[in-house]
Parts: sequence; structure tokens; C-alpha cells
Amino acid sequence: MAKTDGGKLRIGIVGAGYWGPNLARNFHASPDWVLAAVCDLDRARAEAVAALVPGTPVVTSLAELLEGNDIDAVAIATPARTHHSVTEAALEAGKHVMVEKPLADTGERGRDMVRHASDSGLILMADHTYCYTPAVVKIRELIEEGALGDILFIDCIRINLGLIQPDVDVFWDLAPHDLSIMDFVLPGGLRPLAVSAHGADPLGAGKACVGYLSLPLQHGAMAHVHVNWLSPTKVRHMIIGGTRRTLVWDDLNPQQRLSIYDRGVDLSLALQQLDGADRADAAISYRLGDTWSPALPEREALGAMVTEFAASIREKRAPMTDGEAGLRVLGILEAARTSLARSGAAVVPVGEPQMEGS
Amino acid sequence: MAKTDGGKLRIGIVGAGYWGPNLARNFHASPDWVLAAVCDLDRARAEAVAALVPGTPVVTSLAELLEGNDIDAVAIATPARTHHSVTEAALEAGKHVMVEKPLADTGERGRDMVRHASDSGLILMADHTYCYTPAVVKIRELIEEGALGDILFIDCIRINLGLIQPDVDVFWDLAPHDLSIMDFVLPGGLRPLAVSAHGADPLGAGKACVGYLSLPLQHGAMAHVHVNWLSPTKVRHMIIGGTRRTLVWDDLNPQQRLSIYDRGVDLSLALQQLDGADRADAAISYRLGDTWSPALPEREALGAMVTEFAASIREKRAPMTDGEAGLRVLGILEAARTSLARSGAAVVPVGEPQMEGS
Amino acid sequence: MAKTDGGKLRIGIVGAGYWGPNLARNFHASPDWVLAAVCDLDRARAEAVAALVPGTPVVTSLAELLEGNDIDAVAIATPARTHHSVTEAALEAGKHVMVEKPLADTGERGRDMVRHASDSGLILMADHTYCYTPAVVKIRELIEEGALGDILFIDCIRINLGLIQPDVDVFWDLAPHDLSIMDFVLPGGLRPLAVSAHGADPLGAGKACVGYLSLPLQHGAMAHVHVNWLSPTKVRHMIIGGTRRTLVWDDLNPQQRLSIYDRGVDLSLALQQLDGADRADAAISYRLGDTWSPALPEREALGAMVTEFAASIREKRAPMTDGEAGLRVLGILEAARTSLARSGAAVVPVGEPQMEGS
Amino acid sequence: MAKTDGGKLRIGIVGAGYWGPNLARNFHASPDWVLAAVCDLDRARAEAVAALVPGTPVVTSLAELLEGNDIDAVAIATPARTHHSVTEAALEAGKHVMVEKPLADTGERGRDMVRHASDSGLILMADHTYCYTPAVVKIRELIEEGALGDILFIDCIRINLGLIQPDVDVFWDLAPHDLSIMDFVLPGGLRPLAVSAHGADPLGAGKACVGYLSLPLQHGAMAHVHVNWLSPTKVRHMIIGGTRRTLVWDDLNPQQRLSIYDRGVDLSLALQQLDGADRADAAISYRLGDTWSPALPEREALGAMVTEFAASIREKRAPMTDGEAGLRVLGILEAARTSLARSGAAVVPVGEPQMEGS
Repeated sequence: MAKTDGGKLRIGIVGAGYWGPNLARNFHASPDWVLAAVCDLDRARAEAVAALVPGTPVVTSLAELLEGNDIDAVAIATPARTHHSVTEAALEAGKHVMVEKPLADTGERGRDMVRHASDSGLILMADHTYCYTPAVVKIRELIEEGALGDILFIDCIRINLGLIQPDVDVFWDLAPHDLSIMDFVLPGGLRPLAVSAHGADPLGAGKACVGYLSLPLQHGAMAHVHVNWLSPTKVRHMIIGGTRRTLVWDDLNPQQRLSIYDRGVDLSLALQQLDGADRADAAISYRLGDTWSPALPEREALGAMVTEFAASIREKRAPMTDGEAGLRVLGILEAARTSLARSGAAVVPVGEPQMEGS
Repeated sequence: MAKTDGGKLRIGIVGAGYWGPNLARNFHASPDWVLAAVCDLDRARAEAVAALVPGTPVVTSLAELLEGNDIDAVAIATPARTHHSVTEAALEAGKHVMVEKPLADTGERGRDMVRHASDSGLILMADHTYCYTPAVVKIRELIEEGALGDILFIDCIRINLGLIQPDVDVFWDLAPHDLSIMDFVLPGGLRPLAVSAHGADPLGAGKACVGYLSLPLQHGAMAHVHVNWLSPTKVRHMIIGGTRRTLVWDDLNPQQRLSIYDRGVDLSLALQQLDGADRADAAISYRLGDTWSPALPEREALGAMVTEFAASIREKRAPMTDGEAGLRVLGILEAARTSLARSGAAVVPVGEPQMEGS
Repeated sequence: MAKTDGGKLRIGIVGAGYWGPNLARNFHASPDWVLAAVCDLDRARAEAVAALVPGTPVVTSLAELLEGNDIDAVAIATPARTHHSVTEAALEAGKHVMVEKPLADTGERGRDMVRHASDSGLILMADHTYCYTPAVVKIRELIEEGALGDILFIDCIRINLGLIQPDVDVFWDLAPHDLSIMDFVLPGGLRPLAVSAHGADPLGAGKACVGYLSLPLQHGAMAHVHVNWLSPTKVRHMIIGGTRRTLVWDDLNPQQRLSIYDRGVDLSLALQQLDGADRADAAISYRLGDTWSPALPEREALGAMVTEFAASIREKRAPMTDGEAGLRVLGILEAARTSLARSGAAVVPVGEPQMEGS
Repeated sequence: MAKTDGGKLRIGIVGAGYWGPNLARNFHASPDWVLAAVCDLDRARAEAVAALVPGTPVVTSLAELLEGNDIDAVAIATPARTHHSVTEAALEAGKHVMVEKPLADTGERGRDMVRHASDSGLILMADHTYCYTPAVVKIRELIEEGALGDILFIDCIRINLGLIQPDVDVFWDLAPHDLSIMDFVLPGGLRPLAVSAHGADPLGAGKACVGYLSLPLQHGAMAHVHVNWLSPTKVRHMIIGGTRRTLVWDDLNPQQRLSIYDRGVDLSLALQQLDGADRADAAISYRLGDTWSPALPEREALGAMVTEFAASIREKRAPMTDGEAGLRVLGILEAARTSLARSGAAVVPVGEPQMEGS
């Protein structure tokens, strides 16, 4: 292990763009970490980020960052097409890695990275920041403790007036948030049986600006995502329907982000012993119950994430958003790209890691 | 023409179920109509509806209703599987017909009805009641006068905790509302290039309880519908994005049902002369403008619809929601059914009448 | 007791105006009551109301209604200035009485009516319909069981664009709702130490169109009411702050009418043993907890009220909204009128019945 | 004038507490200003603020700050009780002054400061930051151009769960925001004919935690303010009713902060020629029109305020929130304190500067 700072781990940030300052600020503020260096090919950009923590060294080559024996881990915030090579170099040098979403630009490269980290006994963490917000952590707890029962459907909406991105379409820009969140809260992760993507490019921008993903799940359940750059109103909304309760997350309502409805459709006990055909004929009623909204702590997600990164390194365990979580999200995005090219045909996502490495 | 009541038209209502009382009340309240008779096989049910307008005759057979020469038209509110035979008999007897949604239980029968009415010079009107609400009438006007520009996308949500219907799935129960509304407000009607349907039956009810419809339109535009019987919250929401403005209809917000946003994504003039590939690279900005919410009159939709039925008969013109509108909706529902059976594959709807009769 | 209809009580409705049809419909629908007659000086109006329940007799004089021995009770829905004389006649004839709000046009007459009913052993009930809505019944239960703790403040808003009434100002038009509700939910009723009224007549309508009532309560608590005819938006909102929890009632949000916030300002135990001056210096923190929204039954308030009227007669007990409740509301309205004439000076309401009769 | 930095004005900040960093950041970011020094008795605090702009000198005495001839103006963010002495010293030294709200701790001292600045030909600006938010600037414009017509009533709500302040009650803590905003948007400023204050201290905190202000205005209009530290929900809401239109400002709805309702109560032309008594009898109808929500720029209020401070100095004119505006707010707060001590009696505010200086 690298040199210690009173037991703190030492992080090097690679990539000083949009996300770099947030990483620098949060690693610095964490009692678990020391910000050891900021690395960017562009020295001025690296210096701008490093200035947030006076005294932080700046380097302009990855090799230079890794050669020193003074860092334990790197946080990669470079463009997606470079994630593979930077990660490979870092793992080669024995560093733990946290990498911004998407894990890589292709599933194959992503699987390669996960296999390499696993073989090296190093942590590979996906920077699924949203998963560490208090609301999402609470949703995960509620599902885990059975408060919702079995999950029946998940409907996600993430729309607003957004700049059309030069390099990615609306699926790759916005859907990773919802996919990583669903992967995080569902026990066993998000493993759709198929992916169907429908998109529209009504302005002739050369890429989908409006998109819908349909993801059939086990046991007849279904997830669906609506992403849209053309909506004049901003919506961040998720419904998670369960057999016991249904949860609604409205991220733009700070006074009541989460609502848990003790309502739903009831199949009586007798009905549940019947076969499908008979159940279809039976009367199905619904139940109206109370609504409950848990208080959520005020806490910055990125701070919780760097804490988890440190804990996973120290406890030599997978982080809550590990490389395989990143791979599952990547696999769905790739399947969506294929489906989109096939007029929305159902595509089975590849790349579930347990089917790969073994 | 039938016997006159001071120039009023005479209507017979066929089917005294859930919808019958609304029809009776509105035809009676209209200055254009006289409620001439209520017909149901079940005399008690017919009498209950007829009692709403003291003195209204009751009959228990369709033949009896049609044989008298005293009615001009019938309003059919019987189950969908009977729409074809009742309509055929009424047209045979020279009566104009208004028929509840869906027009028929199959596209083929629906096309048969439309052709028959056309050949007989009689009005066949689809009971798309929602189209006559003040909000929908206003949306149609706004689109017609160009306030939204070209339509880019339409996103519809119609979800609530609903009783699982014994005979139809959630698509056939709820989607006709959104489909008929889109058909009404879009110039030329709703004519998707294909239909993809994704549904879920997570409770084992024997039919889809959660459903999504993707409808690619001309010029890269797209419509989408989300219908759901399992949502604990009720949502009736439609976004219509246009090149000039975007409209949001929130039917559950009586204080501001319609909002027109003067915002959107701008392609500069120069860009619009480039080919797709070049446009994709160009920077695309967005524009933030005012929001406007038109005042809407308080008016019962069904009242406006019976007025339109009378006007179309008198003016010997197609009503705003004519049989062909009904056929278009029916064609999409049938295509959705096929798509659903094919895992969401894109299905081209048949039954656009102009392709049939000729 | 009057002649029985299978154990049902017999009601005569006096006054066939705006409220008459609602009374007729609900008494008729109740298993406790038979609608025995409708009385109005204007026979046509009486007949219109009576027609809602075919076969209901119509009378055009109060004497005629009361002389028959066939009614147990009268429901009075005549103008306020006649409440006293009609009630006196009915009590004289041995009938129980339910009287529309306000109980009378002056406190003195109201007190007279209450005393007369009490002396005669007859029920005098105030028609505070709003108190019987599911939301208000639930609020009363919650306060009674201590869910809110001690009440600290109540803030009521009842505003909308309303027709300016010819005979009353905005206080007498709208505030009785909030006053009767507070009286209903507060243990012991609403007994302010003083009343201050501030009003505005900015259109020169000759009466207040915008009004505010400040009502200091025992133990430093306070109630406040805002009523307004000139607001373009409609608001029906009440906050009831307690030492344990705070309740918010938003009557125009059918999806979540009641919210109970488990939040508040905490004075630590130690602080509570200090005197005022010391407590002022101490740090006071706040506590953030969950929010809870109870499911409410769908039920018509007037139906519950006629049930309570019957129950109170049969059980020979005061109804939940008895004459004294009506008096308390009336006393506050009278004090408000006086305060308004004195530029908002604090006026102690008279007419608390316990201070009168004894 | 002091030494120039390329034509920029030089500011010294006095007081490095809560507000100091915001002042430092905004003066530094402004093209009009150079941050010349930060002054606080506590050197460490001064240094922490000065560190936001590397190289900024720190001083620990007011005399030291003022003696140098290198500043043009001071921004005072010290406790209210020191505003008078700091301002006097600064004016004495020939510096322009911007002072945090409230202008002073008593009206008398505030009037003294205003007179002194006026006599010295120096700018005295009240730091009414809220007035420079895009929403408030827009409201002022709308009223100025007559979009609302004559103002009939203003209703302000500013409530949330707030820490009980050690030194001030809820009126002095929260009401200055609403008072300064109303003063800013009303032509001629906020000049109530009287002030009535009603407060409650239900927790025994030694000061009002719930408060209501009634402010009768000219021509029968009225303003009202509700401030509250005990509300579990946060509300920032203002209704400004006019003869032509009514404006609603919901500051917590970023998607639609301002709504202008083209609705209201109509007095027909004929009625307006009648006297009060006759008008009262006449039927008054209301009008329902469209709603409009103007787009607002994203802009930091404090940035706009320092720009205005510079412009007023350069153009030798009163700033939009001048000392007299600060005095008017202070006068109302003082009248409220007196009213509160007199059970809500109407108190005429003193201290309108035009009645003083002459």
C-alpha cells in the first residue's frame, strides 16, 4: 500500500473537466482521503482544479501519476473512450479505480476492465453518484426490507429542455442515471430479459432526442424509462410498484421527495392459488391506504460515494456500485443501441459478468 | 326524415348501462334533440334510464325501436362486440348512428360499418367524448392555427389505480382516450407509421395491466402512450412538443389545465440548410420564453358532442369525430394487440379507410 | 313522538332555496329519516324540491307544517334573519331543529334559541356541514387522541374569486366555515380570548371583500383566518401546529388532503423548567421527521350530518355540532363586526353560553 | 474620489460574518468594483472572507479602513445595533455606504443616518437584496407599466420551520423581506396608513414565533404579511391583486415563479359613477381570462445590487433601494412592535423621511 497520511488513503484524480472539481472537493473534505494529485494533459485545467485544495500537486501524464508510489487509487473523469486504457494502466500499476459513467464505450472493453480488476484483487468502482443520494439509499432500504413487496413495475421519467450533446444521444446522456439507480435498488441488480428502444429525432439532429426504453423483467414485471431533451418542463419522477406498496419518487419536490402509498390491487388469497386463466376471470379489487413520506437527511451524494470507495478498499469487498453494476448498465445501453437500429425489436443484453468470466 | 318536434331531431338510445344515463341527460338537455326512446333487452334497466326524462318510452328490442318511423338517429352504448350488428340494423333502417368507443371489436367490422354508412349517405359518428372537452377543443385550435408549429413529439400518460377489467386489457380500456384525442388534434388525424406495444401482467391477471405504445409518425416525429391500472397516483398528462412552442395538458389541475411554453430547441436558419450529418455536429441552443395558460370555458363535453351530431346530420357533413376517426383508433389498437403478441415488434396498422374502400 | 315509518324519524324541510335540494336528497337517502314534507312560502319552489322525492307533500306555511303531528324535526334553510322565529315556532310545537349557519342574525337571538331548546329538552343542531367531511372528522380524531400534542397555532386560508354577496361581507360569507371547523376539532370548542378583524373594501363595494381575523387563544396559542373574494386562485388551506406534530389540510388536493408532519421546534426538557426570560436565551432546535397522510373514506358530509341528527335525537344527547357550537361561531362573527368598526381593536366575544344561562 | 483601478470603484467590507462572503464574492465578480479590503475586529474571520479573493488586504479597525484614501465606499454587514455608528464614521470620512437590513435598530438613528448622508451628498443604500431578484424586478416593471391596474390588496406569506433567533422576534427576522419588496414594487413605496401586529409565542420562547401584520393602504387597499417560524412546510408566496390583473408569486416554484391572472371582479362602468351605497347594491360580476407567466432571467440578486450601488454613485442619484426605503421598512417594524405591545391596536408609523428633513 502507498504511503499513509495518518491512515488516510491517497487519491489521484485523472481528468480535470466538468466533474473534476466535484471529485476534488469531496475527496478533500472526506476524513478517509487525501487528495494526492490532479492529472490532466492540459496543465492549466489541472491547476484550476488543484487550486481548490491549495498545495495539491499537478501532473500532466498518467505515467507520472502512477509511477510515484504515493497513491492508492485513481478517480477517472476523462471521456468515455479513454476509460479502458486509463483503467488498464492504473490497474497494472496496482491502483484501485473509480471510473465515471459509462464504465466504458463498449461492453467488451468494460468486461475486460472488470476481469482485470478481479484478477488483480483491486477495487473497480462505478461512479454512479445518484445511487448515493439520500432518496435512493432510502429506496434501496425499503425494497430490501420488503416494504414494497415484490416489484411489479418501475416507470422512470427524466425529461427537460437539454442541450443536444455532440457525441451521444439522449439514451446515453440521460438513461444511465435511471438504469444505475434501478440496478442499485433492485435486489440482484437490474437484469432485464430484453431491451426495446424507441427513439425520435424530429429536429434532424442526427441522433435520438426523445427516447423510451422497455425492459421486461422476471416474473412478468417491467421497467420503462422516458428520456427527453425537448420537454419544456423538467421532470425527475420514478414510480416503483410493488405487491405490498408503491413508491413514488419526485426528485424535484424537496418537501416530499418520496411517497410510499399503502395502496394497490389485491388478489385475494384464494385467487392466488388459481392458475392464470382462472385468475383472469376473478374479480380483482383495490385497496386504499395511507401515504407515508420518510424524512431524508441532507447529505451530498458524492461525499457518501467517496466514503464507500474507501470502505470497499479497506474491507476488501465489492463497493455498492461495483464494476459489474457498471457493466449491467453498459449492457443495457448497448442493447438499446442495437434495438434502436432494428426499429425497436427486443434485444437481449449481453455482458452480464457472471456469464462472461466463468 | 322522421317526424319532427319543432324542428328537433329524435334520438333513440340503445343500451342502458353505464353510459346510457349520460346520453339520456345530454340529449334531453340539448335544444337540437328529443329523446324519443330508450332501448335495452333488460326492461328494468331501460326504465331506470328513461325515468331521467319523465314520459320517455321504453322498448326492449332493437327492431321495435327502428320500426317506428319516429326516430332520426340512434346512439349505441352496448358492448363492443354488438356494435357491428346494431349499427348495421340501424343503417339498414335509414338511421344516423353514434357509436360508443371502440367503434367495433375488429377493424374489419369497423371498416364494414364505415363503408355501409358512406354508401347509404348516413352519418356514422364515433363517441369520442373526450375530444369535445374545452381543453381538447382548444388544443386542436392551437395546432390548427400554427401556435405550436410542426409537431415533434407527443407524450401521453393516463395512469391510476383502476379496476382490472374482465374483458379488455389496459390498452383497450384506457388508450382509446389518448388515441382519439391525438387523432382529433393532429391535422389529418393520427396516422402512425408503425405501432409497438409493450405490456406487463405482473399480477398474473391474464392481461396487460401496464402498457406502453410507441407510434413513430411522419418526419421523424413520435407519439407515445403510457397506460397503467396499478399506479397509486392518478395522472392525466399530455405533452405536445412543436417546433414553435410546446403544450402541456394536465387534466387534473383545474386551475391551469393547459400551459403553452414558448420555449424549445433552436436550430439556426443556417443549420436548417445543412444535411443531417452536418447538422448533428452543429451546436444547437435552446430558447426560454414565457408560459401562457388560456382560460377555458366550463362546458360538458357530451353536450357539445350531441350538438355536433345534430349539426353533422343537418349539414350533411362528416362530424368532427367520424367513423374514419373511429377506424384509425381501432386500427392502432389492433396493431398494438399484434405487436404485444410479437414482443413489441413494430406493426404497421391496417384499416386506414382511404386504402380500403377504393 | 310523531308517527313512525318503520322506526324512521320524519323530517320537514323549511326553505326550498339553494340548500333545500341537498337536504331533501340526503334526508331521503338516509335509513334514519323519512322526508315528510317540504315547506316554502313559494309553492313552485317547494314543489321543485319535493319533486326530487316523488310523492313528497308540499306545504306553504310553517303553521301547516307544524300542526300535523306527523313530523319529528325540521331542517331550516331560510334566510338568517328568519332563523329565530322559525326555530321558536318549531320548538314551541315540540320539534327538534337543525338550522343552517349562521345560527341567527344576532347573538342575542341565538342565545334565546339555545335556551329555549334546552328548556324544552329538544335538540337544536347547527348545520355546520363541513365538520362532517371525512377530512375534518379525521382532524378531530387526531387532535383528540393527542397526535398533535397541544395546539400552538391554526392558520386558515379560504380565498377565491367569489361573487360579492348583496347582504353580507366576506367575513360572514366565508369565515363561518373555518370557525365552525376549528370549533369542531378543538377540544372544548373555539373560545378565543379576543377577536381582531381587519378588512378591506378596495373596490368600493360597500363591504369588506378581503378579511383577516386574529384570534388569540389560551396558553399563548393563536388562530388566524384569511378570507378573500378577490383572489384569482382558489385556496382552501389550514395548518394546525402542535407541540408534537403539525397538520396541513389542503382541501383542493384530493390525492393528499391531510398531511401530518412529525416535525417541529423542540424545547429541551431542561428548558421547560426555566422561566420565560431564560428560555428566550436558550438555543431552540428543530426536529425533522416523517410525513404521513391518512387515507380518507369517500363520503358525503351532509349524509353523515343527518345521521348524527337522528342519533342525537334518539340518544337524547347534544349533537356534535349543537346550538352552543353555533353560538360560539356567531359570537366570534359579532365580535369581528365590532372590531372591524373599531379599526381592528381587540374585542372580547360575548355569548359563550355558559356565561349566559347561569 | 479615491484612487482608481481602471475606473473601478473600491469597496471595503465591514463585518465578516454570515453575509460577508456573499458581498466579497459579488463585489469581486463585478466589473464595477475592486474589493479593496475586508474589515472585522476578529482578524481570523476577516482573513477567511478575504481569502475568497487572494491578495485582499485585511484590517481590524474601522479607523484603519477609513483612513486610507483608497476606498470609495463601504458595505456594512455588522449587527444592527452598530449600523448607526459605523455608518456615521464612514460618512464622516466621505465614503458612500451600503448597509444591511435593518437600516438601524431604531427609527431615530435611521433617520439620523439618512439626513447625514443627504447633507454630505453621499449615497446611503439599503441592502434589500431580495428586491434585485429577477422576479421582483419583473413585478416592479409590471406594476409600473400598469399591467395590474390599481393595487387592491397584497397578501404575503413567508413561513417555514426556522430557528428561533436569540435577539429578534419573527417579525424582525422575516417581515423585512416582504416589507422591502412591497416598498420596492409599489409606486411611491409602501406607506401604510397604520400598522396592526398580532403575534403568538405559544412555546414560551419569550418572543413572537408566529406573526401577522395588517397594513391598510390608501384608497381602501390593504397589505398583509404572515410570518411564522413553526410551519413544517416552507411557503414563500405573494398575491398582488389589481383592478386589471392579479399577480401571484410563488418563489418556491422555479418552473413558474410568477403568474399573472387576467381575472378579477368587474364593476361595470355605470356602477363606477355611483356612490358607495348604491354600488353596494349593484350586482358585481367576475371575469375569467388567461394566465400568463413571464420567463425570468437566471441572475444573482446580489450581483445586480452591487451594480446598482456603483451606478447610483456614478450618476449621483438615489439608488433604487435608498436609505429612505430602509427607513420606511424600519418605521413599519417599529410601529409593529408598538402595536404588538398594545394587543394589535392600529399604530401610525412615524419616520417617513419627507416629514423629517423639512
